[in-house]
Amino acid sequence: MARGAGRVDVRLELGTALAPPLDARHGLPRQEIEAALPRLARVLPELLAPGAPSGFLAVLRRPKVVQEVLRAAARWRRRGLEDVIHVGIGGSSLGAEVLVRALAHPQHNLLPRRKRRGPRVHFVDNVDPDSLSGLLDVVDPSRTLVHVVSKSGSTVETAAGFQILREALSRRTKSWASRCVFTTGKGSLHALAEEHGVETLDFPEDVGGRFSALTASGLFTPALLGLDAAGVVAGGRRMLLRMTRVPLVENPAALAAAVAHLLAETRGKPIHVIMPYADALGPLADWVVQLSGESLGKRSPEGGVMNGVGPTPLPARGTTDQHSQVQLFVEGPADKLVTFVTVRRESRALTLPGGEPAPYLEGVSLGELLRAEQQGTAVALARAGRPSLRWDLPTLSAGPLGQLLVALEAQTALHAELLGVNAYDQPGVEAGKVAAFALLGRSGYEREAQAIEADRPPSWLV
Amino acid sequence: MARGAGRVDVRLELGTALAPPLDARHGLPRQEIEAALPRLARVLPELLAPGAPSGFLAVLRRPKVVQEVLRAAARWRRRGLEDVIHVGIGGSSLGAEVLVRALAHPQHNLLPRRKRRGPRVHFVDNVDPDSLSGLLDVVDPSRTLVHVVSKSGSTVETAAGFQILREALSRRTKSWASRCVFTTGKGSLHALAEEHGVETLDFPEDVGGRFSALTASGLFTPALLGLDAAGVVAGGRRMLLRMTRVPLVENPAALAAAVAHLLAETRGKPIHVIMPYADALGPLADWVVQLSGESLGKRSPEGGVMNGVGPTPLPARGTTDQHSQVQLFVEGPADKLVTFVTVRRESRALTLPGGEPAPYLEGVSLGELLRAEQQGTAVALARAGRPSLRWDLPTLSAGPLGQLLVALEAQTALHAELLGVNAYDQPGVEAGKVAAFALLGRSGYEREAQAIEADRPPSWLV
Repeated sequence: MARGAGRVDVRLELGTALAPPLDARHGLPRQEIEAALPRLARVLPELLAPGAPSGFLAVLRRPKVVQEVLRAAARWRRRGLEDVIHVGIGGSSLGAEVLVRALAHPQHNLLPRRKRRGPRVHFVDNVDPDSLSGLLDVVDPSRTLVHVVSKSGSTVETAAGFQILREALSRRTKSWASRCVFTTGKGSLHALAEEHGVETLDFPEDVGGRFSALTASGLFTPALLGLDAAGVVAGGRRMLLRMTRVPLVENPAALAAAVAHLLAETRGKPIHVIMPYADALGPLADWVVQLSGESLGKRSPEGGVMNGVGPTPLPARGTTDQHSQVQLFVEGPADKLVTFVTVRRESRALTLPGGEPAPYLEGVSLGELLRAEQQGTAVALARAGRPSLRWDLPTLSAGPLGQLLVALEAQTALHAELLGVNAYDQPGVEAGKVAAFALLGRSGYEREAQAIEADRPPSWLV
Repeated sequence: MARGAGRVDVRLELGTALAPPLDARHGLPRQEIEAALPRLARVLPELLAPGAPSGFLAVLRRPKVVQEVLRAAARWRRRGLEDVIHVGIGGSSLGAEVLVRALAHPQHNLLPRRKRRGPRVHFVDNVDPDSLSGLLDVVDPSRTLVHVVSKSGSTVETAAGFQILREALSRRTKSWASRCVFTTGKGSLHALAEEHGVETLDFPEDVGGRFSALTASGLFTPALLGLDAAGVVAGGRRMLLRMTRVPLVENPAALAAAVAHLLAETRGKPIHVIMPYADALGPLADWVVQLSGESLGKRSPEGGVMNGVGPTPLPARGTTDQHSQVQLFVEGPADKLVTFVTVRRESRALTLPGGEPAPYLEGVSLGELLRAEQQGTAVALARAGRPSLRWDLPTLSAGPLGQLLVALEAQTALHAELLGVNAYDQPGVEAGKVAAFALLGRSGYEREAQAIEADRPPSWLV
């Protein structure tokens, strides 16, 4: 191991996926995992080479990316914002949601202003009329910043949210353009920004939406709240450095990808649960679902519309889901790999008082209870022959979070290599969008509208 | 069809799961669905008979259940509460979460007090120290009501949350007991209530946590906020009445159960996506996951620890997940059934202005766009040969919501009958709890602690 690499804090525990102790039909011999690694040898170097298929790792080496974000955020923070509205969908929303929820006060929006370190924050990630009109009931446009994130600039849901908010800003402020920041590439939003003088942040050309958490897409909104965006990127760099220095057999992203791939392909376990034990990591599970679903859920390289590949990611949250999905995980079909995410030390300790109904809890800290419940769930899974993995964070703070995000992005890219699919496209998203435009009667989609009408299935309505 | 049954508003569309137009390897001929129904004929009458295995339908016929809730809520509302904290886990939290999120203002907690119709609301459904201490930063115990929900009264997570909140109440009020209401059965919480004079609401003996949404467990917290709890129960009764009057072939719960079961067992589709197109129905998806996961994820009646049965429910939300999971649903493995939930008319209309970047949206309402996107996604799934179902609500309001919850509960009970499992137990939850107690060093669990130590898998940490 190269010097320094051992100091990296986020760790991956693989012992609970091994056979033995698991039955070899449900766990993996260590040699089998190691044998899958050589196929991955060229991927990481390729991702760092010029002209890589994705720049999600290379972007960590460009200091200007985070500097631009920090400078812009500092300027806006001086203007005394009351609210920030982040408008984006999919990866253009989830990265920022992960960082805000993990790093801000758990009740950030309800804190009195003097106790908050920045504006309240709202995410518009849908075209739901009740949500959007409800939001307009509680924000004052004249003290609000609207941060619009869309790489192409033409995402219809993001455009719809922005256009409604622009109208609301126009009614209440002199210049809507002075209350907006766009994080976008070279598309129609960029042109609009140039026309009206809207501040823009760069959406790197070589980074896709779901890999954009450590660019302005994911960082600017957290930075507006005073959260440690630079620390997140520093953590990401640390994981990158580690991955480039250690052999694959010590690379957690490569090992996690190999285990997930082998369990899906050779042990009948295509359902991959991601289960953080921390409320603040709830959005992380949604982020993993999006990253995995869009990157790996593809037509098989062998072709055929019904022969798709890719595991199905399933979000869960401990301990809450111990009273929901864990019954299914432990006793239902043996078709799952559970990946836990744990935090070794909570930021704020709470010690349990005794008394009824649970006097035996006296003196236990709530963090100990949380960790014991995770371990208990892992034991129950192991006894039932179900494999698991565990990402372990020393604390829930910027550096470890950045490390984890980069490790999970790398795991996804490596998993795509094992499946033989392109991690960076999403052709299946297009069909539904075209059909929706046709159904709305958008000009130019008349032929599609006719095709939908002709194919309409018979209704069986009860 | 019996008179009156035709007026029921919530409908199920099954046409998109049929073969043809789907290929018979991925959809179902209508006759095949109908042939599965006779096995269900005796289940609904049994659930309404005395001594039924569960009273979740029978309880709708007991007017005292909702009357008790409404009276208690009216009394508490007169006392001018600022906050209500609902402490429960699994089904003892999710029912109330569904109703609050579906029926309250989308930004309820952020509305100024004069615009709110009731106290702010918070859910404690985990033992996360950051969440709980963060909550204590924003509530004033002397103006807070703590509603604790646990049928057994001994659920460890609920006990932990309650004990910490009791201490906080004791520090800031004269009597913690006068700031609490317990919804519980005849266990240790009930004894504690009798000792200290805490107000209690009945958790019906014959209703399990995950089927308790239409009892005090799910209704009292929404009623405190001024939401229409009685309307939810009236909707539930309406669906019950419909199900008892129409033949099985017109019973949406029976048809949905048959479709789900047949697609899982005979068409290789064990992953069942529940995808509402409304932000306010996000918790509904989590509620379905819990209801299905714990009720159907069981050891096979044929035995064997690895031979579990039960579909894997997967939550999604439209349109947001069109930029996340839909890529996987459309192009990935053909192992899924997608069940949409749609709302025909939004409560607040928003019309889109034009201009860049999407001038073509001018004049379209946001609700139209939402519905067109759902239809577009259904078209894309159908073209890719993937089956779907759709529950359709006329509006997102109390009555239709009550109808839907009862239909989904009945669907789950009927599905269990087709699988040959007991929908009302959760034996797989126990193992992890016992292991957690042993790991905490709780007295009486020493043998379990030794067993865990002896079985500890080797660590492989990177």
